[in-house]
Amino acid sequence: MTSASPRDTELDVVGLGNALVDVIAPTTEAFLDEHGLHKGSMSLVDTDQAQRLYDAMGQAVEVSGGSAANTLAGIASFGGRAGFIGRVRDDQLGAVFAHDIRAAGVAFPIPPASEGLPTGRCLVAVTPDAQRTMSTLLGAAAQLGPEDVDEDLVAGAAICYLEGYLFEQPAARAAFDKAAAVAHGAGRKVALTLSDSFCVERSPDGFRDLVERTVDVLFGNEDELRALYATTSTEEALEHAQRWCDLIVVTRGAAGSTVVSGANRHDVAAAPVDRVVDTTGAGDLFAAGFLHGLTSGRDLPVCARLGSMAAAEVISHLGARPESSLAEIAGSVLD
Amino acid sequence: MTSASPRDTELDVVGLGNALVDVIAPTTEAFLDEHGLHKGSMSLVDTDQAQRLYDAMGQAVEVSGGSAANTLAGIASFGGRAGFIGRVRDDQLGAVFAHDIRAAGVAFPIPPASEGLPTGRCLVAVTPDAQRTMSTLLGAAAQLGPEDVDEDLVAGAAICYLEGYLFEQPAARAAFDKAAAVAHGAGRKVALTLSDSFCVERSPDGFRDLVERTVDVLFGNEDELRALYATTSTEEALEHAQRWCDLIVVTRGAAGSTVVSGANRHDVAAAPVDRVVDTTGAGDLFAAGFLHGLTSGRDLPVCARLGSMAAAEVISHLGARPESSLAEIAGSVLD
Repeated sequence: MTSASPRDTELDVVGLGNALVDVIAPTTEAFLDEHGLHKGSMSLVDTDQAQRLYDAMGQAVEVSGGSAANTLAGIASFGGRAGFIGRVRDDQLGAVFAHDIRAAGVAFPIPPASEGLPTGRCLVAVTPDAQRTMSTLLGAAAQLGPEDVDEDLVAGAAICYLEGYLFEQPAARAAFDKAAAVAHGAGRKVALTLSDSFCVERSPDGFRDLVERTVDVLFGNEDELRALYATTSTEEALEHAQRWCDLIVVTRGAAGSTVVSGANRHDVAAAPVDRVVDTTGAGDLFAAGFLHGLTSGRDLPVCARLGSMAAAEVISHLGARPESSLAEIAGSVLD
Repeated sequence: MTSASPRDTELDVVGLGNALVDVIAPTTEAFLDEHGLHKGSMSLVDTDQAQRLYDAMGQAVEVSGGSAANTLAGIASFGGRAGFIGRVRDDQLGAVFAHDIRAAGVAFPIPPASEGLPTGRCLVAVTPDAQRTMSTLLGAAAQLGPEDVDEDLVAGAAICYLEGYLFEQPAARAAFDKAAAVAHGAGRKVALTLSDSFCVERSPDGFRDLVERTVDVLFGNEDELRALYATTSTEEALEHAQRWCDLIVVTRGAAGSTVVSGANRHDVAAAPVDRVVDTTGAGDLFAAGFLHGLTSGRDLPVCARLGSMAAAEVISHLGARPESSLAEIAGSVLD
């Protein structure tokens, strides 16, 4: 991973993802049943469905979200250099998203669209067990295309990080291809998060093709990896993925994580958490810590520990972005 | 206060107030100095000032706010019947405000405006000492006028509650006069919160005139009462106000509250709080508990204890509306 050294780059990580504002409300288990929601998953909804769900939800809190955007905000909180590529409209939620990602210290050079769909939002139902179930109205986020891929931004970043949720949009697939080509052309690495097993199951061939053609660093949980190779065995899925990716990072919730790099395998415990309030952003922040470690030249087990630590911070409060400085929390891990 | 009995009313309390979405961010003391903000106060800002402040603020959380709206949400959380009169635009923040107040169980029959200023917002800077300093861009909220006062709603509520912050707007003053006339015509009571000492200092004559003409129940902290009668003595201000109001409720922060009704005076201790996170909404929720007690026929010291309890809940977390059922928490006070 010498090309991931920060010395010859403008940024550590540039990410392509959905620009979304999260609308978070506590709900009951019955709410999920009534609305046919599968706990822990992300579903795309249309405007009418979103309105029905929102009408039925209790008082909510709005906070900027988006999976890759959360990861980049986490990298910035560690002191890393991050940039984001995603689409918002020139509306109130778009202004909220743009403000928050810039306030987090992430470069976001994409101007808001002056026409088209409104800024996307993600209705997050948090059940008493702290699980999050997401219903996403993509809006402007779904209109990300290759024309939004700033080539200099991508070429100047050690790692180009792709958000799997975006992969269902044909224009975004073209944006992924362009970004990956620019990154590899500049000697950079391409990373992908599989995002959601249902998402992978809807396009397993497309995801495998993307992984096998362009992905150097693959992030996923066990369900997502198994969905990618249509198998019930995580180990079998890992064997497949290893043939194509330099590095595979498997998150296992409370059981920690596994990092596979060629013949080397590291199993790393999860960081302790006093009280899990809302698991939204756990995977996003794990990726933040891991990528920050990687672009700072840390050993793989240290990268995984940084990931666990960042995930532990984000699940201890409502919302998917860190509330405390990850750089400060990281001190104990890195010393 | 026999007219405040719930038996012959549709609602316990109807409130007129600013319909605002709070934009809450943790800030430093230096941030207040740099931007000339007076800690603990509310200032009105124009669009440019609001943009400058917002650009300088860190990552924020958006939650519905507005002083009287918070009070009404609190009353509903106690199980009381509340209605709100205030103005939003038909934009994204307006939809957030309307959703949240209805989801809280408060009647909000005013349709969003299809033209005019965008929905108002309140930038809330929370310093490490948990104090909130507010910069409000009123937007559509400032356009509330007498035409928005639903006479049936007001006539059917035991108490009509007026938010002092609104008083700087001439059209809102006319709305206050109309609402007070309707309430008194129906044999109801009129309550007012003085809201902010700077606000009172900008129009002391107007506020005194309002209090002396129409207010039965007056809420304020010591600074606000002293500003009302341009005196340095809270006792002297109380003596003045007593000549005009049936009931005066003085909040004193950690020192509790004082209720004056004719010759009777009750000093009530504050409810204990483990950890004060954000004082936004403390006064609003005190008023909620007090008004709920009053409209349920409770004795004045019990009303004050319900107020303290609701204030204690809201200052233990970020945001100005209750996160726990106040009806459940109230059990111990009322039994």
